[in-house]
Amino acid sequence: MRELLIICPFSSFNMVKLGFNLRTTAYPMPVVLVGAVVNGKPNFMAVAWFSKVNSNPPMMMVALGKRQYTGEGIVENGCFSVNIPGEDMVSETDYCGIVSGRVEDKARLFDVFYGKSVRVPMIRGCPVNYELRLADTVEMPGTNLFIGEIVGAYVDEEKRSGEVPDLTLVKPFMLMESPPSHYYGLGRHVADAYEVGKKLKPSNT
Amino acid sequence: MRELLIICPFSSFNMVKLGFNLRTTAYPMPVVLVGAVVNGKPNFMAVAWFSKVNSNPPMMMVALGKRQYTGEGIVENGCFSVNIPGEDMVSETDYCGIVSGRVEDKARLFDVFYGKSVRVPMIRGCPVNYELRLADTVEMPGTNLFIGEIVGAYVDEEKRSGEVPDLTLVKPFMLMESPPSHYYGLGRHVADAYEVGKKLKPSNT
Repeated sequence: MRELLIICPFSSFNMVKLGFNLRTTAYPMPVVLVGAVVNGKPNFMAVAWFSKVNSNPPMMMVALGKRQYTGEGIVENGCFSVNIPGEDMVSETDYCGIVSGRVEDKARLFDVFYGKSVRVPMIRGCPVNYELRLADTVEMPGTNLFIGEIVGAYVDEEKRSGEVPDLTLVKPFMLMESPPSHYYGLGRHVADAYEVGKKLKPSNT
Repeated sequence: MRELLIICPFSSFNMVKLGFNLRTTAYPMPVVLVGAVVNGKPNFMAVAWFSKVNSNPPMMMVALGKRQYTGEGIVENGCFSVNIPGEDMVSETDYCGIVSGRVEDKARLFDVFYGKSVRVPMIRGCPVNYELRLADTVEMPGTNLFIGEIVGAYVDEEKRSGEVPDLTLVKPFMLMESPPSHYYGLGRHVADAYEVGKKLKPSNT
């Protein structure tokens, strides 16, 4: 089989597919810090299970384990923040994924600021911050999906290109969850989106 | 203000936060190809709005516009696939985000295979494939969140390290959605996860 693969490198027909553990997350996810006021104090946790889920109005989803301390604050206040750390904050971010706000004051690490609501703590050191109003909660077996409508979006003045955040300056990083677990930065420009595929249109062949 | 920032590079207090368009997605997301049988034929679409949402059982969420052709197949069959393309498939992936299966047969681009169910088409050329059973659908203003339980996970034999996919071999790529829209590869190793933050524990200071 190995020899066949070498002889026919452009054919996918000889590739052997093998099963792997269903719980292995085999793709990178950006890491964000989710913020909420819990028991009257700001708290932050690292989350790699999140996504945009709606465009108009703009909405995001974060999936938090049911016993997460931060989740209590989201339920209590009906709002939360999503902060995008740069590579220079990888230690603080990792720390917020290791320890619980139940036992340690993680906000001590950050300069906290507020946007429209004093119940939505955000991290000034993170170049990009989203402020959200809880719109819906979906209960899963082990998590709660907190779906929020974005009501504020903030970026460091010097991390922009034109009117929007410049991700080559923001320098977000990704978590490779499958062990060994690593953080990776953004790599090279691979292609222009909504462009490189046009050549495959039947009219072009 | 600019001068202050240069003089005090380690202080975040002088950074000016500015608002930006609430609809701008200012973080990278991995791009996947979501597969379903629609009207009896396999179809695939590019999606960057997706996430793991539960660990046990392992579950994933994909957010699809309500008029997406692929969504019709997911509703009809109650199952779908999530395929992780490598950088070598960036053109095909982009194409699947540009054109609708309503007007063009996108499956012609791929060698399609099936796992446990003949209703879940997967792409052999994508090094990692997940097979999912639809567990829940959450209706958003403009999208449907299809939440699936992972029932099969497949990887190319030569894209593994040990028993799990090796993402440095899989070479997934990320979409920077905010214009100009670009695809980026994975970059350098920044730090070890669940490790680099330990030094911030109070007992260590």
